[in-house]
Amino acid sequence: MRKILVIHGPNLNMLGKREPEVYGHRSLGEINQQLETRAESLGIELDIFQSNHEGRIVDKIQSAPGRCDAVVINPAAFTHTSVAIRDALLLVDAPIIEIHLSNIYKREPFRHKSLIADIAIGQICGFGASGYIMALEAAAKLI
Amino acid sequence: MRKILVIHGPNLNMLGKREPEVYGHRSLGEINQQLETRAESLGIELDIFQSNHEGRIVDKIQSAPGRCDAVVINPAAFTHTSVAIRDALLLVDAPIIEIHLSNIYKREPFRHKSLIADIAIGQICGFGASGYIMALEAAAKLI
Amino acid sequence: MRKILVIHGPNLNMLGKREPEVYGHRSLGEINQQLETRAESLGIELDIFQSNHEGRIVDKIQSAPGRCDAVVINPAAFTHTSVAIRDALLLVDAPIIEIHLSNIYKREPFRHKSLIADIAIGQICGFGASGYIMALEAAAKLI
Amino acid sequence: MRKILVIHGPNLNMLGKREPEVYGHRSLGEINQQLETRAESLGIELDIFQSNHEGRIVDKIQSAPGRCDAVVINPAAFTHTSVAIRDALLLVDAPIIEIHLSNIYKREPFRHKSLIADIAIGQICGFGASGYIMALEAAAKLI
Amino acid sequence: MRKILVIHGPNLNMLGKREPEVYGHRSLGEINQQLETRAESLGIELDIFQSNHEGRIVDKIQSAPGRCDAVVINPAAFTHTSVAIRDALLLVDAPIIEIHLSNIYKREPFRHKSLIADIAIGQICGFGASGYIMALEAAAKLI
Amino acid sequence: MRKILVIHGPNLNMLGKREPEVYGHRSLGEINQQLETRAESLGIELDIFQSNHEGRIVDKIQSAPGRCDAVVINPAAFTHTSVAIRDALLLVDAPIIEIHLSNIYKREPFRHKSLIADIAIGQICGFGASGYIMALEAAAKLI
Amino acid sequence: MRKILVIHGPNLNMLGKREPEVYGHRSLGEINQQLETRAESLGIELDIFQSNHEGRIVDKIQSAPGRCDAVVINPAAFTHTSVAIRDALLLVDAPIIEIHLSNIYKREPFRHKSLIADIAIGQICGFGASGYIMALEAAAKLI
Amino acid sequence: MRKILVIHGPNLNMLGKREPEVYGHRSLGEINQQLETRAESLGIELDIFQSNHEGRIVDKIQSAPGRCDAVVINPAAFTHTSVAIRDALLLVDAPIIEIHLSNIYKREPFRHKSLIADIAIGQICGFGASGYIMALEAAAKLI
Amino acid sequence: MRKILVIHGPNLNMLGKREPEVYGHRSLGEINQQLETRAESLGIELDIFQSNHEGRIVDKIQSAPGRCDAVVINPAAFTHTSVAIRDALLLVDAPIIEIHLSNIYKREPFRHKSLIADIAIGQICGFGASGYIMALEAAAKLI
Amino acid sequence: MRKILVIHGPNLNMLGKREPEVYGHRSLGEINQQLETRAESLGIELDIFQSNHEGRIVDKIQSAPGRCDAVVINPAAFTHTSVAIRDALLLVDAPIIEIHLSNIYKREPFRHKSLIADIAIGQICGFGASGYIMALEAAAKLI
Amino acid sequence: MRKILVIHGPNLNMLGKREPEVYGHRSLGEINQQLETRAESLGIELDIFQSNHEGRIVDKIQSAPGRCDAVVINPAAFTHTSVAIRDALLLVDAPIIEIHLSNIYKREPFRHKSLIADIAIGQICGFGASGYIMALEAAAKLI
Amino acid sequence: MRKILVIHGPNLNMLGKREPEVYGHRSLGEINQQLETRAESLGIELDIFQSNHEGRIVDKIQSAPGRCDAVVINPAAFTHTSVAIRDALLLVDAPIIEIHLSNIYKREPFRHKSLIADIAIGQICGFGASGYIMALEAAAKLI
Repeated sequence: MRKILVIHGPNLNMLGKREPEVYGHRSLGEINQQLETRAESLGIELDIFQSNHEGRIVDKIQSAPGRCDAVVINPAAFTHTSVAIRDALLLVDAPIIEIHLSNIYKREPFRHKSLIADIAIGQICGFGASGYIMALEAAAKLI
Repeated sequence: MRKILVIHGPNLNMLGKREPEVYGHRSLGEINQQLETRAESLGIELDIFQSNHEGRIVDKIQSAPGRCDAVVINPAAFTHTSVAIRDALLLVDAPIIEIHLSNIYKREPFRHKSLIADIAIGQICGFGASGYIMALEAAAKLI
Repeated sequence: MRKILVIHGPNLNMLGKREPEVYGHRSLGEINQQLETRAESLGIELDIFQSNHEGRIVDKIQSAPGRCDAVVINPAAFTHTSVAIRDALLLVDAPIIEIHLSNIYKREPFRHKSLIADIAIGQICGFGASGYIMALEAAAKLI
Repeated sequence: MRKILVIHGPNLNMLGKREPEVYGHRSLGEINQQLETRAESLGIELDIFQSNHEGRIVDKIQSAPGRCDAVVINPAAFTHTSVAIRDALLLVDAPIIEIHLSNIYKREPFRHKSLIADIAIGQICGFGASGYIMALEAAAKLI
Repeated sequence: MRKILVIHGPNLNMLGKREPEVYGHRSLGEINQQLETRAESLGIELDIFQSNHEGRIVDKIQSAPGRCDAVVINPAAFTHTSVAIRDALLLVDAPIIEIHLSNIYKREPFRHKSLIADIAIGQICGFGASGYIMALEAAAKLI
Repeated sequence: MRKILVIHGPNLNMLGKREPEVYGHRSLGEINQQLETRAESLGIELDIFQSNHEGRIVDKIQSAPGRCDAVVINPAAFTHTSVAIRDALLLVDAPIIEIHLSNIYKREPFRHKSLIADIAIGQICGFGASGYIMALEAAAKLI
Repeated sequence: MRKILVIHGPNLNMLGKREPEVYGHRSLGEINQQLETRAESLGIELDIFQSNHEGRIVDKIQSAPGRCDAVVINPAAFTHTSVAIRDALLLVDAPIIEIHLSNIYKREPFRHKSLIADIAIGQICGFGASGYIMALEAAAKLI
Repeated sequence: MRKILVIHGPNLNMLGKREPEVYGHRSLGEINQQLETRAESLGIELDIFQSNHEGRIVDKIQSAPGRCDAVVINPAAFTHTSVAIRDALLLVDAPIIEIHLSNIYKREPFRHKSLIADIAIGQICGFGASGYIMALEAAAKLI
Repeated sequence: MRKILVIHGPNLNMLGKREPEVYGHRSLGEINQQLETRAESLGIELDIFQSNHEGRIVDKIQSAPGRCDAVVINPAAFTHTSVAIRDALLLVDAPIIEIHLSNIYKREPFRHKSLIADIAIGQICGFGASGYIMALEAAAKLI
Repeated sequence: MRKILVIHGPNLNMLGKREPEVYGHRSLGEINQQLETRAESLGIELDIFQSNHEGRIVDKIQSAPGRCDAVVINPAAFTHTSVAIRDALLLVDAPIIEIHLSNIYKREPFRHKSLIADIAIGQICGFGASGYIMALEAAAKLI
Repeated sequence: MRKILVIHGPNLNMLGKREPEVYGHRSLGEINQQLETRAESLGIELDIFQSNHEGRIVDKIQSAPGRCDAVVINPAAFTHTSVAIRDALLLVDAPIIEIHLSNIYKREPFRHKSLIADIAIGQICGFGASGYIMALEAAAKLI
Repeated sequence: MRKILVIHGPNLNMLGKREPEVYGHRSLGEINQQLETRAESLGIELDIFQSNHEGRIVDKIQSAPGRCDAVVINPAAFTHTSVAIRDALLLVDAPIIEIHLSNIYKREPFRHKSLIADIAIGQICGFGASGYIMALEAAAKLI
């Protein structure tokens, strides 16, 4: 059975609790539930992980090679600052899909630059929680 | 019945004929056929338009208000150079979705900057022809 | 009888229909009517032209030498992107006046730079439709 | 009776005496006379002020609120360097019109940036002394 | 009883042990003691936290909403690099005060830019350990 | 008896009269009264000075050496433009404290750079009129 | 028989009519005549095209693959602004030669950057109408 | 007996497993073994530490003062992003040697800037695992 | 008899009183005395002026045309900030010599750029008070 | 008889020996032979010079005035670094033609800027050894 | 027997005579002696060359291909300015090692950029004369 | 007897022969004669050197320490490009005076930056051949 690693970056554990007008009303639990449901229908197993710690995300990605077929990652704040996550992803053979809930091009200029974008297959941003389903479906097609 | 305007920018009429390793093997006709099929199943009418002429794309977008419920646009080369298309899109009330076949962040630096991104709902890039279907489905959800 | 070429750039044909809080409530037809009326009282003939196509504006300006005594131009989006219009204007002997409806210095940074400003006699911006009358009167004084 | 404050920045007291090919042959006195004549015909009272001292211009602008209905200002050299004049103008409720005798976009690059432009209603530049009359008439329409 | 969360960023646990000419002779323990004393006199409860781990600071800030009335934060090195802490602070409703022991504008250029400054109420820097007391008193007034 | 020179830069004489949502409701007179009261309790004599004229502020600072023990300065607009005030402050032996009513990092980019910050002991910004008291108390501790 | 596509960009139809001191006295018709004569002697067939419309030039270049053996292009103003022409040229298998009548490095800074140069075989600039013959001969050698 | 702290930054635990053409075939364990062997022959005790967590590296470095005589550090991805590690190293009295396996000047531009280089004694890069031995020997000479 | 206007910018009235290691031990009075003595021997009359007020320096320079044969100016802090002084100097027909006591290229980067240098005959910097004599002698030769 | 000075910059003496895929297979001797043959047919005398020493090239160019009618120069690496060669060429009255074997716009960014281009008649690049013949023929037409 | 070319750039012949606190007390002769001794023990023959003349260094490097197995180069000042030396090194098949006596990242910003670094195997800097031995040993391992 | 080393950079041997409107009519021989005459009257011995070769100038400066008491240098084109000359001058204990014939701030932007200015005592520019005498006299005073 194919496996996909889904990584949620820092502060995404707070989804639905704060600034719903920006990030939507759904909690991360609800999003994960939707992902699991959709994955099941696609015959894919998910490994979902969230952390506010860059190091833990690096550790998690390092465990991916040989154990998953694709990575769906919303690096959140680490998108713009973490070379370590970029380097960990460079060690992964599977396709990587970058996803953002909000449209990062409407926000502060430092959010316009992603350290991940050029090593991912593609990027989806601005579609809120739906973006995760889009990313999952895109990953499913690739693997 | 809901309508979506789909706009293909310059040189996209050549899809499948040249550089298939970059842009994929499907011709624009095939992509449009897939879009029509998917739209039909979603109960959406499409108005598909391609041009190599910035002015014609502006004309087309100007005809959109009141006549369509969303715009899916792959501005291609005009992504990076056309303020006129941006201004035309600013006149549209319906949600706008930007899509790129290739991952523009893997290409020349001047392709990293989009004049459309901050006025669109969201952006999808790097998924080849599948990106159009993703954009259509995302638009369908929004309207 | 003296003649003045008046050029309206892309999307100005939509004036009054969209974003009236930014561009005012008057349509381009009404503005042109006001210009004709004022020109008549100044004993000046007008040649008014609007296009969303950069190439057509270049064609039109090329027809100006020897056929008109001044150019009043609102290049709109082409202000910031068209070297071709700049080059066409460089071929015109008559004085050139640049006009903008909105105050471009209150808008996005890429609108602060005009490719026309340094080859025009002067620039008027921020006065809405009245700016056209101001430009016409200024042109009338110069010729 | 409506009142307009007219401010001339540094070195404008030398108009007509030096570099007439750049700034025109009319002295500041003559320009002021023309302004007074036109204002009278428009039923407007003028308060005209020139200074080479940034601080005195700030003092003068501070006296404007409640005492005048519009400000016409040619900040001259202070256009590019005075945050203090910007801040004073920010305290004024009445509309502000920025005017320059020469086309600042034809001159040294440091003259292309105005610290006033984005807080003014609009800008007129390059029309010599006529620009003041244009500004006065535009102000008259606004108030 | 009102509560204030006090956060000390990386390396601040070494205060007093190293470079006292830059950071002063007082240890973090002594500073915390002074803060507790002053808080008590102000009738405020403190929750003081230090970590060298960005992720732990994010975790801590996430626990703040609904549990504290203000945040006093010296992000130290994370001031210049952590979008994750910025994002966590954006989730907090209470006022945020940024404090630095040294005058960051006297140091390396990369220390002149704070990723926190524009989302804080205000910033205090250069006053050594006294700055914490100033920040605490300012926070007390705000809540 | 120790003396502190307090300098208010341009437009601060308008405090309370304009834009109270930005600068607060207290007039400069009221702020000065609060400062005097607090200074008296600290056993400090104040020399308070406000001017819209850069030159007068330079003159005033030049009179400080040997006559005061600290300088508290809110350079307002001159923060970003006056090398002359910087140079005058460089001649002062006493500690200098920079204070701003508003959080300059939330405002226009040109306000983010201070020509004074690196020669001051420290900076306080964003706390409104309270910032003056904080600065006074900090100065009192230093002298 | 080998074929070469010769493309003249915007405003080149005005050659000889305006600014002969910059662009020379020969009209485009005369240059084309010289090119035809030289091509005939080289046993090459020419397809010569001029347009002020970016879109038409893109259309024309799209027709080149399989129908011509080399492209000689003077993109004129589009040199610096047209990603669409660049993209069209990227679809052409035949060698591309860029030519400019004037020395673009003696002109405004925005003319120093070509969006075509790095995808052409080579560049010839500054030799006036002779440059076209040089380009034709170079193309003849390459094919 | 002299002690040297050896720090390996994020993802270096994956050495030998991934991208051997870039980083070489030796695992981190093998490199550490080589370092231990060489240290023994030099009469030096090593304290070797690897982490993907910035905070843990900061913690480790903080433990160095008084307990080790030199630091050999390959900060890997943190080279370019961690002010916290820089600050921790600033607290160490012992000489610091920066080492990189690959030649960072052949890689992405963001890898050309080290936040550590100017506070280290020296830098060694591009020699693969041998670089560690070179760094160890250099450290041995310095202490 | 030939006349030379000598202008001393802000804070130069403090010469000799502060920072003698930077600016030398001689007071401005002593420098002026030396200048007068040297001028007398050269048969030149001096008009010496110092001000901390930009406006007064502009006023003074405006009085120069027709009344002096050369200007020797040490604009001090205004070197880097005053377009108004530049504009006033542009109105002077006589040759202008710029002089600085210290070597401005050894100081803060913002002191490396002079707004006067390109409109002066020449610049002398770094020779302390002797620079004034050098400037006077150079001016004497030019007139 | 007309004379042309041909200058080959540093490392061009190695042509044909190294990197033939970049610079072609012909040696400099062969290129010079071709140039001589072509010059003879054009009735032109050549003075050909190669050096790896900037100073010798300056010396050689200084000998040109009055002794040659045109300069054909491939400054190679000195294109981007030698103001001295630029200055020497500025002393030459004869037309200057700049030639590069490779297309410098396809190479490292520092090779995109020529210190010679704006003082030459024109530039030819990317045509390999043929470029020299093109330059020679162009020079022959100019003299 | 294997051979290594050792190149010392400009001013290195002065080692030990000037600024020993920066460059160390050993003369170049002593360093060369140490290199010879170490090379002998490694069974390597050295060809050592120093010059203040860029051209002579280029000449020397050109003689390397086929005659030496590695190049150890301290380009000194030419590190930052010589494209000619870079180009000469590009012609060498053998591995290149860049070495600097001082830590160039602690010095003026223009010394932070090396024109050689990205074409060398690796870089060693900051270890004084020992760096040469390290480079020699590293070269010995590579060949 | 005191000695001063006078260095003339590249192309200065051509003085008087070319571009006299820029550099004056006097030849380098005449300038040197004037310098010798003035030096004799000052009781100073001169060592005058001109070269178009950077390396020879470095060699010459290296011979200065212990053999001359000051250096007067017009680095000409090397002002902007030679780190090697800067480094050689850094080895000299005697004061260094930089002189330029023309006003470099009126010329191309790349001439505005001197690599020598911040290590010289002072700079004199724009006074033509007289500048050398001024520099000599200034040097005489310093030694």
